[in-house]
Amino acid sequence: ALAPPSPQQGRRGRVSIVAPRAETVNPSIRKEEAKVVDTVQVAELTKPLTAYCRCWRSGTFPLCDGSHVKHNKATGDNVGPLLLKNK
Amino acid sequence: ALAPPSPQQGRRGRVSIVAPRAETVNPSIRKEEAKVVDTVQVAELTKPLTAYCRCWRSGTFPLCDGSHVKHNKATGDNVGPLLLKNK
Ligand code: FES
Ligand code: FES
Repeated sequence: ALAPPSPQQGRRGRVSIVAPRAETVNPSIRKEEAKVVDTVQVAELTKPLTAYCRCWRSGTFPLCDGSHVKHNKATGDNVGPLLLKNK
Repeated sequence: ALAPPSPQQGRRGRVSIVAPRAETVNPSIRKEEAKVVDTVQVAELTKPLTAYCRCWRSGTFPLCDGSHVKHNKATGDNVGPLLLKNK
């Protein structure tokens, strides 16, 4: 039997371009969790400045490791971290 | 003169399905800025708990207004805020 038409394939074999689906922000971080929430005890911050990731591409999430730069270049996006200042 | 072919349109008018482009995380917040970075002076936090947005859908960005819930439902994503605890 033939497979059912894919979303991009009409009944007569004509191809239509479909709008992209709504996209996830987080491709890979802690996908086993229903919602990724992190808590910072601000009294425990030791450095004068700590950067927290908001691009969901950091290898040290929830901290920022600079990966937003590559993401912004690749996509034209403009995201950056939240900086916590301790002084 | 004809416009140059769009990425989805080949030279002979054949249509090919292209993989979705890498997607931006931030659809609309402060797009006039090259990089959206926010700074929190932790000594100035007045409430015991403050939630900062990491989904880029908040109407009160950089604060979280709960919009991540709608985003997660619509896309199957699992993003949530960064919580700053002041006690
Ligand atoms: S690595 Fe994600 S904001 Fe910097
Ligand atoms: S509204 Fe964006 S994380 Fe809550």
